[in-house]
Amino acid sequence: MAKNLFLLPGDGIGPEAMGEVRKIIAYMNGAMNADFSLDEGLVGGSAYDAHGVAISEEDMAKAMAADAVLFGAVGGPKWDSVAYEVRPEAGLLRLRKDMQLFANLRPAICYPALASASSLKPELVEGLDILIVRELTGGVYFGEPKEIIDLGNGQKRGIDTQIYDTYEIERIAGVAFELARTRKNTVCSMEKRNVMKSGVLWNQVVTETHKRSYSDVKLEHMLADAGGMQLVRAPKQFDVIVTDNLFGDMLSDVAAMLTGSLGMLPSASLGTADAKTGQRKAMYEPVHGSAPDIAGKGIANPIAMIASFAMCLRYSFNMISEADHLEKAIATVLNKGIRTGDIMAEGCHQVGTSEMGDAILKE
Amino acid sequence: MAKNLFLLPGDGIGPEAMGEVRKIIAYMNGAMNADFSLDEGLVGGSAYDAHGVAISEEDMAKAMAADAVLFGAVGGPKWDSVAYEVRPEAGLLRLRKDMQLFANLRPAICYPALASASSLKPELVEGLDILIVRELTGGVYFGEPKEIIDLGNGQKRGIDTQIYDTYEIERIAGVAFELARTRKNTVCSMEKRNVMKSGVLWNQVVTETHKRSYSDVKLEHMLADAGGMQLVRAPKQFDVIVTDNLFGDMLSDVAAMLTGSLGMLPSASLGTADAKTGQRKAMYEPVHGSAPDIAGKGIANPIAMIASFAMCLRYSFNMISEADHLEKAIATVLNKGIRTGDIMAEGCHQVGTSEMGDAILKE
Ligand SMILES: CC(C)[C@H](C(=O)O)[C@@H](O)C(=O)O
Ligand SMILES: CC(C)[C@H](C(=O)O)[C@@H](O)C(=O)O
Repeated sequence: MAKNLFLLPGDGIGPEAMGEVRKIIAYMNGAMNADFSLDEGLVGGSAYDAHGVAISEEDMAKAMAADAVLFGAVGGPKWDSVAYEVRPEAGLLRLRKDMQLFANLRPAICYPALASASSLKPELVEGLDILIVRELTGGVYFGEPKEIIDLGNGQKRGIDTQIYDTYEIERIAGVAFELARTRKNTVCSMEKRNVMKSGVLWNQVVTETHKRSYSDVKLEHMLADAGGMQLVRAPKQFDVIVTDNLFGDMLSDVAAMLTGSLGMLPSASLGTADAKTGQRKAMYEPVHGSAPDIAGKGIANPIAMIASFAMCLRYSFNMISEADHLEKAIATVLNKGIRTGDIMAEGCHQVGTSEMGDAILKE
Repeated sequence: MAKNLFLLPGDGIGPEAMGEVRKIIAYMNGAMNADFSLDEGLVGGSAYDAHGVAISEEDMAKAMAADAVLFGAVGGPKWDSVAYEVRPEAGLLRLRKDMQLFANLRPAICYPALASASSLKPELVEGLDILIVRELTGGVYFGEPKEIIDLGNGQKRGIDTQIYDTYEIERIAGVAFELARTRKNTVCSMEKRNVMKSGVLWNQVVTETHKRSYSDVKLEHMLADAGGMQLVRAPKQFDVIVTDNLFGDMLSDVAAMLTGSLGMLPSASLGTADAKTGQRKAMYEPVHGSAPDIAGKGIANPIAMIASFAMCLRYSFNMISEADHLEKAIATVLNKGIRTGDIMAEGCHQVGTSEMGDAILKE
């Protein structure tokens, strides 16, 4: 049965990076007899330019129907002043919400060849392998009221609402514990229970979920601000970190930057398993943004996008050996000193987007 | 006229660190003819143990009446399961709110003698001097509704509300711009306007305040998650950072950790100037916590508490040369290799809390 992939390259360097994934898919369909069928749509600024919205209804429907969505990046100064409802990010947020992609998996790994590119001392990040499990469909991103009220007298009031229900915390904790079992069996849950009621509930529900079904996994709790500190101080103390949507946004960016491998980090966003087919809705996207400053120059690093496709092979299609293979190809190319400009180092060979894709394909 | 200081040492290492400030004040009252009058109260767990609340009404009244409050630290495992309303942090939050201390100044400086203690490469942090200006009386810390609702069926809902009004953003932006003028004249404002309406308003009001009254200062905007990344990647790009209560909590902790000087960093929390006297309500506290694990052993680092007192001299009493002097004494002691255990390094001389205080006093 054909595996339906829906590609949403988006803006900036998104399309260039996606082009390299297309090459890999074409190769797999040819030489490896894989049966991927591709369709492509618009999201973000490019959708706004074409349709006046951040994603069209037609493309939303295709995303909902696909076996997996590959997402590039959205945004850029060109769309900085479009209305809030149709800004590029609205397309991404709608995909997450409508597809119910509640579990965002963000590995922060340090490629050995790049340890020296980290701003941290190499010994602190060499071999780093953290998985941040971020709740992605709740919290302050989606809670209502979310509005700006005019109070008169030149005063306005901006309001956002952080809401978490028991079931939302339970299911994301479950994902974190399950994944921890395949790793070092340790979960650190982060919130601000000392100031937030949602943090109090988060802490309680994670603790109960642990006691009920995952007491074999080691569980720790940390305040999110202390967590940010500890990530900088001694990141290797962590295995799996589970946290809410906003803290996950902040902490995963800090963690990504620690690795020195920002342009290399992928992410997976997963929904609940379908009761009949067991299939999860899923979207895969690089952690980096659309980098409008270098877009269209053929110099962007496609590795995060390619690594996102590797996560897709792993989580959506259970093609574990293919995923391992692709990830190893990335590491090998880096070890050979083949680098895009963003990760260039002395004695290495600088290449463009397309040569990087080719080099990985060759491996 | 006597300068009334109200001391709230709090829990854990708070009292030990405060003891060293007492020595310095006694010295200033004696040898330097300063006219500080001291009173002391309880806050946090120690107030809970004595009165069943995180701060008594009597001590609140004293804090409101004082010229400045010196605050140690609160919290510890002993009080982990007391009711939310009387948990140690509630005392701190009530002080901030009732005294209307809306401006939290958190310098992140790297003492040259300690650059190698940072987990970042020394060249990235040497000479680092950032000032984080954090809004402290608004946002998700205090917005209502803030509650846990029982939805039945074993489901609960945790709710917190982020609220910012125009005037709150205006006044904190004003503080940031004013302070930037005394430094490198650059402000970076951080929010998540791409997902939060309060972030949209924040961005607008900071921009307008800048245009109206501070267009001589360089203003930049950054998304808070990107800000966290940039702090780790290249912290020296920043001068003054202005941000909301929760982002300020996260970002200032990350920034503090970068310096390698966490145990050394002070903070000032300031209110609006009194219309008649021009005096601001103010509270000074170390950035570090109560460190219950090392409390009572006489080994805690008192430098952050002493540096907080230096900020008090500077901001509450305009005793600039005394503040400079005290800060220089701290740097000199560190340069001489006198260290508490937390910042111990090869070839240095390890001392306890009290000897560290004495060494600084001697300078
Ligand atoms: C683009 C933006 C809406 C998004 C977020 O805040 O979630 C991004 O920062 C991310 O982390 O995926
Ligand atoms: C103790 C806690 C309530 C406090 C906060 O979150 O503001 C602390 O982390 C801080 O940064 O001063």
